[in-house]
Amino acid sequence: MINDKMKLLGEERSEIRELFEYGIIRKSQIGEDNVYDFSLGNPSIPCPDEVTDALTRLIESEDPTGLHGYTSAPGDSEVRRKIAEYLTCVYGAKISKDDLYMTVGAAAALTATLNALVTPGEEVIILAPYFPEYKVFIEACGGVVREVKCREKSFEPQPSDIADAINEKTAAIIVNSPNNPTGAVFTKECIASIAEVLNEAKKRYGKDIYLIADEPYRELVYDSNTVPFIPSYYEDTIVCYSYSKSLSIPGERIGYCMVSPTAKMHDEIYAAICGAGRSLGYVCAPSLLQKLIPMCLGKFSDIEIYDRNRKLLFTKLTEYGYEVVKPQGAFYLFVKSPVSDATTFSEAAKKHEILVVPSDSFGYPGYVRISYCVKTEMIEKALPSFRRLAEEFGLIKR
Amino acid sequence: MINDKMKLLGEERSEIRELFEYGIIRKSQIGEDNVYDFSLGNPSIPCPDEVTDALTRLIESEDPTGLHGYTSAPGDSEVRRKIAEYLTCVYGAKISKDDLYMTVGAAAALTATLNALVTPGEEVIILAPYFPEYKVFIEACGGVVREVKCREKSFEPQPSDIADAINEKTAAIIVNSPNNPTGAVFTKECIASIAEVLNEAKKRYGKDIYLIADEPYRELVYDSNTVPFIPSYYEDTIVCYSYSKSLSIPGERIGYCMVSPTAKMHDEIYAAICGAGRSLGYVCAPSLLQKLIPMCLGKFSDIEIYDRNRKLLFTKLTEYGYEVVKPQGAFYLFVKSPVSDATTFSEAAKKHEILVVPSDSFGYPGYVRISYCVKTEMIEKALPSFRRLAEEFGLIKR
Repeated sequence: MINDKMKLLGEERSEIRELFEYGIIRKSQIGEDNVYDFSLGNPSIPCPDEVTDALTRLIESEDPTGLHGYTSAPGDSEVRRKIAEYLTCVYGAKISKDDLYMTVGAAAALTATLNALVTPGEEVIILAPYFPEYKVFIEACGGVVREVKCREKSFEPQPSDIADAINEKTAAIIVNSPNNPTGAVFTKECIASIAEVLNEAKKRYGKDIYLIADEPYRELVYDSNTVPFIPSYYEDTIVCYSYSKSLSIPGERIGYCMVSPTAKMHDEIYAAICGAGRSLGYVCAPSLLQKLIPMCLGKFSDIEIYDRNRKLLFTKLTEYGYEVVKPQGAFYLFVKSPVSDATTFSEAAKKHEILVVPSDSFGYPGYVRISYCVKTEMIEKALPSFRRLAEEFGLIKR
Repeated sequence: MINDKMKLLGEERSEIRELFEYGIIRKSQIGEDNVYDFSLGNPSIPCPDEVTDALTRLIESEDPTGLHGYTSAPGDSEVRRKIAEYLTCVYGAKISKDDLYMTVGAAAALTATLNALVTPGEEVIILAPYFPEYKVFIEACGGVVREVKCREKSFEPQPSDIADAINEKTAAIIVNSPNNPTGAVFTKECIASIAEVLNEAKKRYGKDIYLIADEPYRELVYDSNTVPFIPSYYEDTIVCYSYSKSLSIPGERIGYCMVSPTAKMHDEIYAAICGAGRSLGYVCAPSLLQKLIPMCLGKFSDIEIYDRNRKLLFTKLTEYGYEVVKPQGAFYLFVKSPVSDATTFSEAAKKHEILVVPSDSFGYPGYVRISYCVKTEMIEKALPSFRRLAEEFGLIKR
């Protein structure tokens, strides 16, 4: 009569969204400037001018029938060729257009990849803390979630914990670095050790195990950090990428799946992704947005603002006595709650008009997530409240 | 190890696509102008100028952070409000923004709706001839396809055939009018009789049965025909709409699900569609394209060209002895094959450089589909070949 699972999913109250909606109401009560809303990962910096210029040029100069027409299901061939050329140049791996499948953002890349790789009943490993929608995506394709907890402080997984979680039903592991919600960037040693564990498990269980690299924050790294290119470490990798954050166009939903050219079953995986995309109703990624991408390759939003926010928040929160690990990427700060129940802390923060997300829905209780993709002025204005909150929890003496 | 079903779906050779690809090769051999390609439903007329103007204005004048930012999952509230207002005005039914869920095209609207309404093992009725992807979408959500054959000539279903196909497992029926591949527009008597059958079956089986109205061709009708507004006839209707054909922007993937405000379980259906969209990885429909729509409401591509093509092809093919029902909508002509095996006929047509799709994949053997969303000059040039083909099959004496 209506699929109950879907109804529940649609009705489910997301902690992040509830907080965001509370923020809207609260702002209408006491004024927008008086609520310090750190709840959402919605980029606050505009897209680079190249995006606006390229869109204008496309619309002004291209034949509209071609510009707005269907592309082939995996994406416009020329678009994919140019992205492949760029990736080849940046990562030194030989990527071709036939490794790329254009999608409506990273979420769609993940659902297409998971539907392609997971047979109902198989398990997918996710590393806590994780992006809460992973569970929804895995369960929607009949998969079973298996969680592995990252270590405190580094927020990297212990290789032996991954090894322990693998069994004959393991289909894949999702690796999200730079990470939401911690801002951790997994080192190349960490990636290499995950690859080693997966390769051993492959032999042990006589089956392929895929690494799904969810990388919407790939270019959001600080302090000259670099993000290891995972296909260079593990051949059976599928990269799910989005231009949402790198070009500050999250609403436009444009990204891709990249099947590593070294994947043993490359052609079969690619075909399965095409089949999954078809079954999910993804006819093609939006044509105009596809054609935008080759005109903006190598262009990025100016992340200096995020970096400034990061340093300011990290320095000040540390000074106030909060336990924070300095994030190396993305635009999130994962702060240890001074009391074990993060919701208690988040509720107390609300009293100081600070909105931060308790970490329970990320599968890692005891923390709050601060999204610092906001205006620096808001942070500056919020600092005294963060200080009072620290005093209230005895982190700092009055 | 890779989901076999998805791999097969990705590898499956579609007759339409094969023909289209044959066309590309053939064109490179004998010249583009010498191949008469009627294989694809890709609009050949450009979008109305209002689309180009609106996109330019949005890009030039809107704040890029807002323009390209996330919208809420069901779509921008203001966009939905304006579409609802327009629909209320056109159809005289009171539609609100909370009936609308913006999607990346009609295919996504269908997958979200099917996933929302179908519990694995339930049946969905489709009317042959049908759009082949219906089967893929229904099976992907665990549903079982039940086909009901439309009558010849009218290409409308016999209500008693629908009644016979309904059982305790029936979840929904998909109605596609104006129809792909026949061009039929179901009369209001036909819709009323389907509604009657469904209402009786609801009582008999004590369960809701949904009507999914797939309406990407809603505005493509000729001879002052009108398309009945199905929610006025049957309360448990979900309309799946796309602007692909009406605005000639098929690659941009923008459309909506509209849950009839009269649907008994309206809020639950809407929630389930939201849940399904979430589980399929649809974060939101592309923001720029969403915002385009309110600026183009009531604007349509100039379908006079299609109408001219329709009349020309219908008149001439009839004159040459082909059995054709004059289509009332969409941009397809469904022509009876002069031999029982339509593939034989389609292969023979290829020898005359005419590409038409045999009807087997539409679930209705013995016909070919001609897509006339092409340049009129191509049709004019193809006519002598259609004539020779008719001679070859003895439809017309030499």
